Formats: sequence, structure tokens, C-alpha cells
Amino acid sequence: MDLGTMLLRLKPIQRPADPSLNAMPSPSKAKKPARKKAVTKKATRKPKAPANATSLDAIFRPRSIAVVGASRRENQIGHQIVRNLMEGGFTGPVYPVNPSASVVHSTHCFPKVSAIPGPVDMALLVVPAPYILKAAKDCGKKGVKGLVCITAGFSEIGGEGVKRQDDLMKVCKQYGMRLVGPNCMGVLNTETGFSMNASFADTPPIQGKAAFLSQSGALGAAILADARALGLGISMFASVGNRADITPPDLLQYWEHDPHTKLILMYLEAFGEPEKFLETARRVSRKKPVLVVKSGRSSRGAQAAISHTGSLAASEMAVDALLNQCGAMRVDSMSQLFDLASAVQQDVLPTGPRIAIVTNAGGPAILATDACAAFRLEMANLSTKTTKALKKFLPPEASVVNPVDMIASADAEAFDKTLALISKDPNVDMVLAIFVAPIMINAESVARVFAKHGKAMDKPLVTCLPGKSKGDPAIDVLHDANVPNYRFPEDAARVLAGLLEINKLRNRPEDKAPTLHVKMKKAQAVIAAAKKAKRSLLTVKDVHDLLVAYGIPVVPGRLVTSREEALKGARQLGFPLVVKVESQDLSHKSDAGGVLLDIRSREELLEAYDTLEERFADDLKDMKILLQSLRGGGIETFFGVATDPAFGRMIAFGLGGIHVEILKDMVFRLHPLTPTDAREMVNGLRAQQLLEGARGKPPVDKEHLIEILLRLSRLLTDHPEITELDLNPYLAGFKASDSCALDMRAVIGG
Amino acid sequence: MDLGTMLLRLKPIQRPADPSLNAMPSPSKAKKPARKKAVTKKATRKPKAPANATSLDAIFRPRSIAVVGASRRENQIGHQIVRNLMEGGFTGPVYPVNPSASVVHSTHCFPKVSAIPGPVDMALLVVPAPYILKAAKDCGKKGVKGLVCITAGFSEIGGEGVKRQDDLMKVCKQYGMRLVGPNCMGVLNTETGFSMNASFADTPPIQGKAAFLSQSGALGAAILADARALGLGISMFASVGNRADITPPDLLQYWEHDPHTKLILMYLEAFGEPEKFLETARRVSRKKPVLVVKSGRSSRGAQAAISHTGSLAASEMAVDALLNQCGAMRVDSMSQLFDLASAVQQDVLPTGPRIAIVTNAGGPAILATDACAAFRLEMANLSTKTTKALKKFLPPEASVVNPVDMIASADAEAFDKTLALISKDPNVDMVLAIFVAPIMINAESVARVFAKHGKAMDKPLVTCLPGKSKGDPAIDVLHDANVPNYRFPEDAARVLAGLLEINKLRNRPEDKAPTLHVKMKKAQAVIAAAKKAKRSLLTVKDVHDLLVAYGIPVVPGRLVTSREEALKGARQLGFPLVVKVESQDLSHKSDAGGVLLDIRSREELLEAYDTLEERFADDLKDMKILLQSLRGGGIETFFGVATDPAFGRMIAFGLGGIHVEILKDMVFRLHPLTPTDAREMVNGLRAQQLLEGARGKPPVDKEHLIEILLRLSRLLTDHPEITELDLNPYLAGFKASDSCALDMRAVIGG
Repeated sequence: MDLGTMLLRLKPIQRPADPSLNAMPSPSKAKKPARKKAVTKKATRKPKAPANATSLDAIFRPRSIAVVGASRRENQIGHQIVRNLMEGGFTGPVYPVNPSASVVHSTHCFPKVSAIPGPVDMALLVVPAPYILKAAKDCGKKGVKGLVCITAGFSEIGGEGVKRQDDLMKVCKQYGMRLVGPNCMGVLNTETGFSMNASFADTPPIQGKAAFLSQSGALGAAILADARALGLGISMFASVGNRADITPPDLLQYWEHDPHTKLILMYLEAFGEPEKFLETARRVSRKKPVLVVKSGRSSRGAQAAISHTGSLAASEMAVDALLNQCGAMRVDSMSQLFDLASAVQQDVLPTGPRIAIVTNAGGPAILATDACAAFRLEMANLSTKTTKALKKFLPPEASVVNPVDMIASADAEAFDKTLALISKDPNVDMVLAIFVAPIMINAESVARVFAKHGKAMDKPLVTCLPGKSKGDPAIDVLHDANVPNYRFPEDAARVLAGLLEINKLRNRPEDKAPTLHVKMKKAQAVIAAAKKAKRSLLTVKDVHDLLVAYGIPVVPGRLVTSREEALKGARQLGFPLVVKVESQDLSHKSDAGGVLLDIRSREELLEAYDTLEERFADDLKDMKILLQSLRGGGIETFFGVATDPAFGRMIAFGLGGIHVEILKDMVFRLHPLTPTDAREMVNGLRAQQLLEGARGKPPVDKEHLIEILLRLSRLLTDHPEITELDLNPYLAGFKASDSCALDMRAVIGG
Repeated sequence: MDLGTMLLRLKPIQRPADPSLNAMPSPSKAKKPARKKAVTKKATRKPKAPANATSLDAIFRPRSIAVVGASRRENQIGHQIVRNLMEGGFTGPVYPVNPSASVVHSTHCFPKVSAIPGPVDMALLVVPAPYILKAAKDCGKKGVKGLVCITAGFSEIGGEGVKRQDDLMKVCKQYGMRLVGPNCMGVLNTETGFSMNASFADTPPIQGKAAFLSQSGALGAAILADARALGLGISMFASVGNRADITPPDLLQYWEHDPHTKLILMYLEAFGEPEKFLETARRVSRKKPVLVVKSGRSSRGAQAAISHTGSLAASEMAVDALLNQCGAMRVDSMSQLFDLASAVQQDVLPTGPRIAIVTNAGGPAILATDACAAFRLEMANLSTKTTKALKKFLPPEASVVNPVDMIASADAEAFDKTLALISKDPNVDMVLAIFVAPIMINAESVARVFAKHGKAMDKPLVTCLPGKSKGDPAIDVLHDANVPNYRFPEDAARVLAGLLEINKLRNRPEDKAPTLHVKMKKAQAVIAAAKKAKRSLLTVKDVHDLLVAYGIPVVPGRLVTSREEALKGARQLGFPLVVKVESQDLSHKSDAGGVLLDIRSREELLEAYDTLEERFADDLKDMKILLQSLRGGGIETFFGVATDPAFGRMIAFGLGGIHVEILKDMVFRLHPLTPTDAREMVNGLRAQQLLEGARGKPPVDKEHLIEILLRLSRLLTDHPEITELDLNPYLAGFKASDSCALDMRAVIGG
């Protein structure tokens, strides 16, 4: 079952009445689950060999490069690449290869790679698709170690393209070559000693600290143009195209160890290998910030889902969960990615949320203060020392509390003194300096003061010069000094909030799954028996046994078909009881009057039995009566496991009833969960307060819920066959010992 | 009570047990409400004379201007203003006034305004604050009709400044002069025939269609710079400063009738006259789009509220309600204001949500599609005619379904043909054209195609050229042709969604309050009696009578203090009953076991009486027992009235219980409500579905709820004394006839 379907099954579980609850196994009448096939497919997907990060040096740090398909004609990709390599100052030899040209870009041209006299580390393939295999083989024979295949016409066109890509991969494997692409726009490495612009982008990059991965070639060119225009320095760049060999996690791993890369930016349209991405990014994001724009949120179907239900598409939840769990920061738009990245490259992150705003004008400071509040930053309470010192030199009309409004007369000297004081204030974690240039103040010298403090401060400083844009001398001063500057105060505030978030992600607790005592063999036996009996939908007894084996409490219950059995069941369970009608044909049994609560005696039980029989027996042929111990004094919650075809198994947690059915108040995470994941889930609901004791009720034991999540996750780890599992509702007791699953359901696949 | 307090009183009403429910009025023990003072103040605020819009011509269309405080020194405001007027080509004479200069900016300088030979319509005051009154009087004597006071040092500094402002206003009234400011940066009118730049901004405006009001002077200068840089043409501009005389509603009214103004942009920090703003903007926004950035969302207190509770500050809700009700569009940031305004100035609004995307590259189209989904636009289903025609000339690799991906080889001609088809497709309401420039395609000619279609199309066209910025020839083509162009696809999508919203606001239904039969005199008598008895907190009988007089149903009930009275009450009410304990000292009576439901007989009633007495009599000295007819079969809702010191009375609607207490799922509107307001309130809840019949329950009668809102609003209109009123809970019955208030409370002031 995929997540979309999960959203549709948020009603309390309606399963066929199952006599096996009485510990008497019987042949299951369950239908086969629809998703079984997809799951099987996923389970048998052939594992990919882990990438060897150092082998990517052949791509990014070659000593020599061949351009296969070099062209004499300008405005051709095969020409532009040669020109970019040479004008970019690649430190090794560039060998144009083209059988029908003798010179390209004033350089001797070879008929084929194997004709090149010296060694060739990397080859860029720009020849038409039908000639690619031959060219690749020629490269292999020559001993080339890395290929970048620019040419399109592979898996993205389907049919013969898929085969062509498979064949290309075979050649690569045969000769031990790594491959970027096909269908990409190239790679760059600005590192001194390489200066390699192996792309057909028409904007040369600025050397810097950001490694950039783009899944879109066309966007790649725009990204390089934007990066240059916005002052973002690039360490390496890769347009990964069809990702036949080298994938985002490979590059993450490679950049993890690149000393020149301090931050990693990604534009992704899909996750090829979510598990590997999760594992790699989880590690890398603790060392270097990873910022991701993930597009493709909306297939047209997903889009329909959004406009009709207001809910996110299911796989969108998976993406959010994945990025959240791996510590990468999801950024909403390319524009915000650049804004944030140009601040992150300063390598100074705030250690707390307290912002000081220094300004010479009220309006923009108010806009900034608003935006800070919206982004959950806190206005710093400046220390008395700071405010006293500010009072000494600022005019009496100035405001020395945060925002510090130095009024329009403030000049460079006043900004200098103020920033010196603010930057040393222990109550301040980050600084936003706003300057609206009045005619009597020299804007350039104020900008120089900002540049000076931006360099000296051990806290982030971002600046905002409303109304000023590139080309203005003051802006150029800031640009040259790499001070993050934004035209609008709201953008500056968003960036500071982003820096704080990155710091949190970087320092999030590193926790290992706790030791949980479970009876794995017992659960294995249950699943083996179900498999043998060809049951996909497990019986209630099966699920009960699985849960109990993994230390997840289940409410005691008996399923009965006669008044005598009911009395016997009551003797075993004790009063008070809940009495429910059970039938495959009845949805919303509670609404239909099929649930009777708080049955306290034999008499009441028999009366309840008769009532339900009277109400339902005529219509429901398979009707049975379920007795359950009454468990009150708690809050109904929901645990769910679903399998997404792309992302694998996901775990959901929420409150029961309308919270999950109507308000869609749930938190998703990918399996397996760390304790931090589980804690974030339990603390992540909008209606969180209900767990903490609202409306005169005591709190529930959140630690218990966290443990249940970890036990569920362990159950999934030990039993890859489990594709669906719902505890709905699960009572979170005001006394933890009252907690238990009140209804449950599980499906196995494969 | 303000709205902040309302948020704190979302628990079901706990009022002192009140014997008057038995129709026997008794002296109220109620405490005086805390807000009475503020309310009184508000009620007695002296009414402002309505502005005469045409009198603003003296400010914006003067035939001659004096600059009092003109300066010979550059980098002085008094110099810059003279220069701006003259270099801007003001069509009348500019008279510099300064007793100690004879020439300013090559122009004869007069010692005082009364020394000027010709007539003077408008004067700009730039002299220091202590000289302002003298200067203003001199202007008055000269017959000046409009003043723009740039000088600061008035109400914004408090103390003597407030007095100075009052005195200035007296002078203005004495001589019949209108006043902009004080403490502002001037006004502009680009209209041919005036060409007046009466400001000290250092960027001259582009003539255009947008009137701009800025409450911040410093931001005003930045706004003019941004407008020029971003290609936004200005009709008029006013920096309103302290708003001593001319206020935002005055300008709205003035611009309503200005033929050159097609859209109105506002940067506001506060609403001085919410009622007048509401009334004026409601009318104007049907004729011209009104876009508002409202800052000052977060006082530090409001900010604390946000970070602690995640809820909006109370007055923020009032702002949202006000802008919503008046049909103005609230824009989140200045950046978005400019983005949207530059598209609105095209004067073509989409009539539906269906967008077509035309692109030559996949990546940015995916980003755009995502953003469209996020902004609730719909991807248009292109007609078969369009797709067939597209197939004829686009290459086979192209996608002819929306987004139409013409692939990288698309040149100007292909874009031209495609846009011609798309623009005629009846399934398309708006178009986004994306062009990522490949090296082999001439970007400028593609831009010219965009410019051509932008002019010809009767649907909005916006463009996105990723990676290209100002200075690029293609961008300049678009800029010159006034085609809205954005660097990032997300911004383009946001703008189109904004255009759609503006169209909706413009065409929203114009509805008058329906005729409601009410017993106004009866209610007047109730309030008069309460006033006479000096009761602010009305008795339950008072509230009951008010509601009934206004056709709002109330559950029948009796308050009793003995078993005998209980039996008598039951005879009157009939069974089944709800029996509740009533005491001033008991909160959360339900949680405490103080509510017994579904009492069906005399025996059960007496048992219930005894149970409650046993549980509570020892602890609650004032304990009484409330009998109410049992009304089930419905959904508990919440109606509330609160008075905000700045915005006056507001009405809230929500669902009862956790929805209002914990999830804060409420909709606010300012009183008085139109039927559209009321409808939006009832349809505006997150948990809306519950009203429409969710979880197997029937729907409730929403029309009934709308009527209750309108009756409440009428009650408030007829009785300005009512400052607080809660119906909590109000049962919205599955049968409308079951609907009634189950608990209620009201406070009068003044």
C-alpha cells in the first residue's frame, strides 16, 4: 500500500471478523493486498555496488581531457566545451577529437581517442547518440578512467534509449570507467591546479566553497549564471543527467572529503536511491551544510490531490521526511537557495535565535522585525552595558533598544561604533544591519564599515540596503567583501533564520537505536506460518502475537458468536468491557450504533449482546461480537506503516479520530527511525498540546510513545516482509500501563 | 476585552451561578470588565470630518509651489527638493523661500511665502520644527491651499511635539489648508501637465499607473528606487508621515477618481481609522486593485506571543480580517509587492485558475509546476485542437501537453507559433513562458516574441528567463515592452496566483445586510435596565432576553437550589435533561465530573442532584444546579464578540472544544458583517468538513449559522454598548430546529 492509500484508510480499521482472535487459527479470508506486486519488485531490485568516492577523481581531477565530438563551429556544444576548458585555463592538455576536423579552437584535433599520444584521464562525449558506444569503447581501450556523456537520447527517451544506456554502462564496467550523465551539461572544478570548466555553460564560475549538483541540465546553465551574478563561489559543479552511474549520494560522499567544498547545494527532481541518500546525507550534513531544492512536488496527479484535499501528495511527505531525517535543509525555491547559500559560504553560523537589528531608518527595521518573528527568530535583549555605551554617542532621538535605530543622521563612524558594541554583546547571536542611504551620508563608507565587521565578527552579519542594487558603489563594496546583502529586509531575515536552522541540523543529536528486548524468533514463526498459508493480510491473532513479541501492548479481547461464549469471555477478561459488532460489511460501526461502552455486569453484557444482535444480525450475515477490556483514561493515537514504491517503508504517527481523518495531523518518517526521529514525530503534531495534558486532563507518557515507535521500527527491520501495519487506535494512557493497541492490522509481502 | 484576552477565554464559559436564569432578576455580582475604560475612550473619540477628495488637488495638482526652507547647500533636503522639482520639470513656477539666501538652484529666493508675487497653491515646509508654525501661518495668509510638511519633530517624538502638531493642525483648519505629514518625505505626481517631484528622493520615477502610499519616509525613498529599477511606473506617490490630516483612506478616495491611477499600492504600519479604511477600500477595491504590505505585525509582545504559542497576535487577526473584508490584497513582503504590481500594471487579469506553461527546458518548468500547485493554480488541459496543431510543427521529442516543453532547439518562430495557439486555447486562463537560452538560439528574438504576445494577448502572460538579469539584451527587450519577467519560476507562479486573487477580490459579490426581524426595543430595555443597575457583566437572563429578541435560539434551562425546585424545573422543561453544577469557583466542570448527561426520569434527576451535591457541595459554597433540556444531534460551535482597542468590535466563529481551545481554528471579521463575510466565516474553518457531514454524521445547516452571524452583527449595530458576547457552545443541530446557544455571556460598556 502506498501513502496515498494510507491517507484513504485513516478511518478506524474495518477488518473482517476474525475468529483467530480466540487463539484458534483458521484459514484467512483476506483478499490479497493490491500492492504486493510492487513490493515484490522492490524487494528483488538488484543492489547497487557502493560508489568508491576516490574514483570520482578521474572525473573532477583529471590530468588530461579529450573532447570527443569537438566542433569547429561556434554555437555548437562541441565547440563551446573546448573553448570553456581552454579559456577556463584547464591545467592539463585538452585534446579535441573529431575524425573530420584537424584543428578546433587553434588546437590539434585527433581522429579518435586512441590516437592521442599522451595519457587521457577523462573524456567528454558530445558525439550523436548512435556513435556513443563506439566512442566509449575507444576511451576504454585508451585507459580513460572517467566519462562525462553530454549527449542525450538515452533512458530519458525510453525504448532504444534505455538499451543504449545499458550498453554504455556495460562498456564502462568492462573498462572500469566512471560515468557522469548521459544527457547532462558537464562538470566543473574550480580548484587551483585544475581550473576545469568541462561544461557548455556560457558563464564562467567564481572560485568558491559551494559544490553544486543539478539534476537538470538547462537549469544548470542558469544556476551557474545566477551563482556568478549573486556572488556565490563554486568549488565543483556536476550536472548529473540520467544518473546511469554517478548519483547524488556518490557526489555527496565525494564532496564530503573535498577540502575546498564547505557547503553542498542540490537541485533534485527525484531520489534514485533514498536509503543510500539518507545514509550518506545523514553523515555528511553533520560536517557540511547540505541545502536541497527538490522539485517535482507536483505530478499532475499530486497536484490534483493538493487542490482537492489541501493535503500534500503522499510522496511529498516522503521527501520531506527523508530530508528532515538526513539533516539536509529543504529550501523552497532557487531564489532562496542562492540567498541562503551566499550567507552560508561565510562559514559563520549563529548559535542561538537572538537577533540584533541595527538601522538608520524605522520602516525597514519594522519589516525586518516582522519577518524575524515570522521566521521564529527572537529579538535580542541587548545588555545594559551595550545600551549604556550606545547612549553615550547616539543622538537622544535614537533608539538604543533592539532594533537599534540610529536615525538618519548616522554616518559610517556611528555604524562602526554601534556594530562593534553589538557584535560583542553576549545576548546577541546574529546581526542584521540596515542602511537606507540619506543624501547627506556617504553610502560607500558605511558599506566599508559593514565589510570590516562582516570579516571580524564571530556571529553572522547580513546587510540590507533598501533600494540599492548591483552597480551601486556601496553594493559593490559589499559584494567584493562577500558580505551577504539583500535588497529587501524580509529576505535578510529569512536567511538568518536559515543559518540558525542549518546550525541546528549540524548539531542534532547523534543517537543509535536503543537496545530493545524482543522475541524475534517468535515473530519469524508467525510470519513463516502466514507465508506458508499464503496469507498476506495477517489474522488478528498473528498481529497480536507479532506486537506482543516486540513488546507492544495490545488490549485483551475475545471474539464470540453466542451469549454463552460472551459470558465465558467476560469471565476471562473481567468487567468493565467494550462490546462491538464485527463484520466485514460494516464501516463506521461506532456511528452505526455498533459499539457499546462501559458494560459493567453479566446482565448488561447480555443486554448489550441482544441489542447488537437486534440492530445488526439481519443485515450482517458474518456478524460476530467482540469483547474488549475497557481501557479509558487516555488519548487515542494512531501508528501506521505503509510502503511507498520509491521510498520504501514509512512510519506515521498521529492522534486518532478527526485529527487523523479530517485534520490530517500526522508526522511521517522513513523507516528505520532513530530515537531523534521518534521524538520529533511524537513532538511534531499540531495538536501536540493534547498529549501534554490539555483541557483539564493529565499528560500522557510521551516516552512510551517514542518507545512504541522504536519497537515498530525494530519490528520492520527484523521482518522486511511487513509492508503495512496499523495500530488504530492505540490508546496512550494517562497511566502508561493502560496504554495498548485497541485495533490493529498488518500485511506482509514478498 | 481585547482579542488577546479572547484567546485566553476559549474555555467554555464559566460564569457565576446566576439565579436570574429563573426569570427572577437579582443584583449582579459580576466584576466590572477590565476593558471598560478603553471602550469608553473609543466610543467618545471625536469623529473626524470626512475628507474632501478634491481638496487634495491642492497637494497633488498645484499650479505653483513654494519650498519653505530651500537651501543653497547640496546634500541638504531643502536643496534636493528644489532640484527634484526643477529637474523633474514641474510645469508651474517653483519659489524657493529662505530669508538668508537670495538664489537657490539658479532661482530667485524669497524671504517668506507672503513675499512671493504670484499665487502659491502648495508649500513644502522644510524649516526646522520650531519655525514651522510661523511658516504655516504665513502660507495661510498667502492663500496657500496645501502643505507638505517634511520637517520632523512632531507627534512622533511625544511631549512638545504632540502640541506642535496640534497647533499646526489648528493653523491648517483656520486657513482651510490640507496637510501631508508632518515627518514625511514628500509627494509626487507624474501626470503630464504637472510632472511634480515634490520629494527628496534621489531617484526620479517612471510615469505609470501605480499610486503608492508609504507610511515610512525612509522606505519611501527605497520604494521609488525599487520601482524604477523594477520597471514599475508611478502615477502618484505620497509619504504620509504622521498623518495629522491626510490619511490612507483620504488618499484611497482621491486615487479612486484619478484617471491615471490603475492600481493602488500601500505600505502601512498602522491603521488610523479602521472603519473609514474599511468603508473606503471596500468600494475602491472593486474598481482598482489595492495591494497592501502591512508591517508592524510584531510588537515585541506580539512576537513573544508568536514564538510561545505559534498563534498570531490578536491585532494581527484584526488586520487580516480588515484587509480581507475590504477586498484589498495583503502581500507578504515588499519584494512580492513589486513583483505583483509590475504584472498588475498590465491591466489584464485571469478569469480562472488554469495556467499553461510554455518552456524550452524541463527543470524550470517542473519548478514552476510545483509552485503553481503550491499557489493553488490548476494546470490547464489544453484543447485537442491546440495539441494537434502543436504536434504539427514541434519535434517529436517535445511535449505537447501542459507544460508544453518545446525542448532546447525551440527558436523564436517556434515560441511564436506555440504562444499564438496557447493564447487562443479556451481552456487556458493565463500563460507562463520560460526560456533558458541555449547557445544556438538568439535570446533577443525570443524576447521580442514574448513582447509581441504580451501586448496582444487578452490573458496574462508572464515570462521567466532563468539566469538572465538586467543588462542582458533579452531582459531589456522585455523590460522596455513592460512584459512582467522574473528570474525564478517560483516568483512568476506566485505573481500569476496573485493576479487571480486580485480578480476574485475585484468581482466578489456586493451584498447588503438582509432584512432581519428583531425586537430592538425589547433589547434596548434590557440594556437600559442593566446600565441603570450598573451591571457590566449581564445576567444570564439579560443575555437570554437579548438573544431571543434578535431571533437567536437559546436552550431552555432552570437554575435550582433544591431537590424540589429541580423536580419543578423538570416538569417545566421535560426530559431528557442535562444536569450541571454551577459555581463561580469551578473551572472545567465537565472534567471535574460536574456534568451529567441524558437524565431521563425523576428518579435519575434526584440521583443526579445527590451525586453533584455529594461531589461538590463541600468545596463550592455558592453551588447551584443548572437543568437544561438535552440537545444532541449536532456539532458544538463557538460565536464570540470582542472589542479591540484599535479596531473596534470583532466577531469570531469556530468549532467548540479542542478546535477553538487548542487548534485555534477560528475565523475573525470586523463588525459589521456582510452576508459574504458571514459566509466566508462559516466556510473558512480548517475543520470545515465537520460541518459538512464527516465521520458518518449528517451535515449541519450552514445557512442557519450564517444567519446567526448576521443577527449577532445586527445586535451589535443596534446596541453599540455591547463590547463582549460569547455563545459557547452554540449547538449547530443536524436538524436546524435543534440549534441553540447552550451557554452564553455578555458585557456592556459605555
